[in-house]
Amino acid sequence: MATNNLRSAIENFEELFRRTLFVEQNDINETRQDDGEHFPDSISMSAESEVDDQPTAHTACPTSPLSQHKWVQVDSQDFENSPKSPARPDSACGNADPYDYLVEEEKECVGFARLVKQVQRNAVRQGFEFTLMVVGESGLGKSTLINSLFLQDLYKDRPLSGPRERMYQTVAITKKTVDIVEKGVKLRLNLVDTPGFGDSMNSTNSWKPVLDYVEQQFKHYHIGEASPNRKNLQDHRVHCCLYFISSFGHGLKPIDVQFMKALHRKVNIVPVLAKADCLTPSEIQRMKVRILKELDENDIKIFQFPECDPNEDELYRQQDLEIKKSIPFAVVGSNTTVEHNGKRIRARLYPWGVVEVENPAHCDFVHLRNMLVRTHMQDLKDTTDYLLYENYRMQLMCQNQAH
Amino acid sequence: MATNNLRSAIENFEELFRRTLFVEQNDINETRQDDGEHFPDSISMSAESEVDDQPTAHTACPTSPLSQHKWVQVDSQDFENSPKSPARPDSACGNADPYDYLVEEEKECVGFARLVKQVQRNAVRQGFEFTLMVVGESGLGKSTLINSLFLQDLYKDRPLSGPRERMYQTVAITKKTVDIVEKGVKLRLNLVDTPGFGDSMNSTNSWKPVLDYVEQQFKHYHIGEASPNRKNLQDHRVHCCLYFISSFGHGLKPIDVQFMKALHRKVNIVPVLAKADCLTPSEIQRMKVRILKELDENDIKIFQFPECDPNEDELYRQQDLEIKKSIPFAVVGSNTTVEHNGKRIRARLYPWGVVEVENPAHCDFVHLRNMLVRTHMQDLKDTTDYLLYENYRMQLMCQNQAH
Repeated sequence: MATNNLRSAIENFEELFRRTLFVEQNDINETRQDDGEHFPDSISMSAESEVDDQPTAHTACPTSPLSQHKWVQVDSQDFENSPKSPARPDSACGNADPYDYLVEEEKECVGFARLVKQVQRNAVRQGFEFTLMVVGESGLGKSTLINSLFLQDLYKDRPLSGPRERMYQTVAITKKTVDIVEKGVKLRLNLVDTPGFGDSMNSTNSWKPVLDYVEQQFKHYHIGEASPNRKNLQDHRVHCCLYFISSFGHGLKPIDVQFMKALHRKVNIVPVLAKADCLTPSEIQRMKVRILKELDENDIKIFQFPECDPNEDELYRQQDLEIKKSIPFAVVGSNTTVEHNGKRIRARLYPWGVVEVENPAHCDFVHLRNMLVRTHMQDLKDTTDYLLYENYRMQLMCQNQAH
Repeated sequence: MATNNLRSAIENFEELFRRTLFVEQNDINETRQDDGEHFPDSISMSAESEVDDQPTAHTACPTSPLSQHKWVQVDSQDFENSPKSPARPDSACGNADPYDYLVEEEKECVGFARLVKQVQRNAVRQGFEFTLMVVGESGLGKSTLINSLFLQDLYKDRPLSGPRERMYQTVAITKKTVDIVEKGVKLRLNLVDTPGFGDSMNSTNSWKPVLDYVEQQFKHYHIGEASPNRKNLQDHRVHCCLYFISSFGHGLKPIDVQFMKALHRKVNIVPVLAKADCLTPSEIQRMKVRILKELDENDIKIFQFPECDPNEDELYRQQDLEIKKSIPFAVVGSNTTVEHNGKRIRARLYPWGVVEVENPAHCDFVHLRNMLVRTHMQDLKDTTDYLLYENYRMQLMCQNQAH
């Protein structure tokens, strides 16, 4: 599945380059004929370090990370006797536990199929990092949705500015980091908020501070990547931008179009229809059709979900299909938990009924959460890395060549 | 009650003048000491024509309305035998039918108490005219609410412009007129809409075309009032402006404050909390408190409801109290009628329940309709006439004196 994602990302990448201005240089296609060349340097590098994972003469170079590496002798007997971690992760795709002993059929193989498990083990050890940006006018329930998605209370006791302060307010960028551990898997979640977006009387340049921030993260990463010591290379590139569209409008607002047009080649935009509990099912359907039509008319490319691997199980494929059908996700968030039918749920209590946030018959919250956390978080990171960041890097190279 | 309204309107008027810049001229209070002087010329004129309601030598002046008046001889016998109109109006305040025969206690009176009934009869014959303006960002359900209020389908098949067209859209002013007859009472309803308000990227001057329109109506009326032939004097002054506040915001938006600050001395502003079915009862309460606080902080004077006459019946006083408690009215509109508990109602059908537009437990729609149509339509007209228009006229006089 990872290879498929990579291939589809590369295809998207090439498609994007065909669309961009600088793609007209003839030599790009020529240098990209060999599939192997598509893999970024960082991946080849990590494969090399896997091979070099022994104390050798490589440590001669003082800037090499190996010079600082401390080798620890582990007795194999100790390892076998050590208790299994109770917090070991279940594979989302139904794969076997990476620590399982060899099964019968594997005894006749060389064993490189287990490389996948090695990568998985390393990833679990290192933990994951994900940067999510939320953009939209104030009052569209951004904070409540984030709280509902990650079951945290990340935004409480926020000071709300009055209309006079907001009249000529500029867009600020704030960042919060939260470490979440679930079944032994660590996720460092960076949440980038954009208070003030669309609030001012004149919203003509609301998109600009956001674009500047996203580009700045690319720039920092680029500088870090070129530095001699990359051991502590920080990656704060924005992997996903949840863009909140008001359910009150008749489709997209001018500010929505302007923002997405300015940012869609820099960040994965995932549009959400905010506070969808004020729309009836037929209104939601009409609104979704209208939004997708207007995105198309304005040539805005939101995040493209990769094709689902046909080898995936039926349940996964069904989930993938439902996610794709739900775009833009009509969502409802809530900070209120209530006892309903014997279990505690996040809900909104109206005099005429209870909106259950996690009920797919009420809204697409579950599909959004599945997409964002369970099925496509890695795809969002890959697309940022292989497509959007590479696009930025190439633009930079072209600019440097031009000077 | 009419006298009480008038008195409270006059008090408001004086209060407003005290607040305005030009009130600092010392001579205003002096010329306004006699209560009788507060009555505008038009009222005195109509009282005169009541007295002059006989063919006399007054017709000598060719511009006098009497010169064109056709006298019709009515046989009193015919009048008594004529059938009662089946469409005769019920009095909203529970007064007796103006056409009823004299009751026992009236036989001992001179009879001028019946003047009230004469005015009422004339008003019914002439019909009523009311101009309502609706202002608010697109998508806040203005058209749907108007349809729900007057049980009409006034806005159908409207072309909705896309986000690109709306990007630099200016505010337009459109007007529709509809004649409604209910129990023999005719109401000519002028509906002024402001499409494009708040839709553009830069909404800094969204309020200006609306203010220009309101002032233009005052100007037309002022010219008409000074003309020799006032028989066909058209009154298109805006009597009420329903201002739609989004339920999504955290209180008022900058555009709301700017609009209301610019218009509150020119038109009766009645704020409504639009599409309130996306707020839970506690959220509605918090939002209302916040809006009222922000209106106060920004020194915005919305329409002030006159004190309820203590002689009114209990039901009326209760209704009046509920109306006053509901401000800003949290409303829900719907173009969909459904069969619910055996009767057809306007409602919104969600998967989690049915929002009944006319259910006071669901929203303040009924209170708004009662205020606008059943109890305070005449107050809104009176305040426009005696307070806002007089304010405009005095400003004009001061300007003319200055030149």
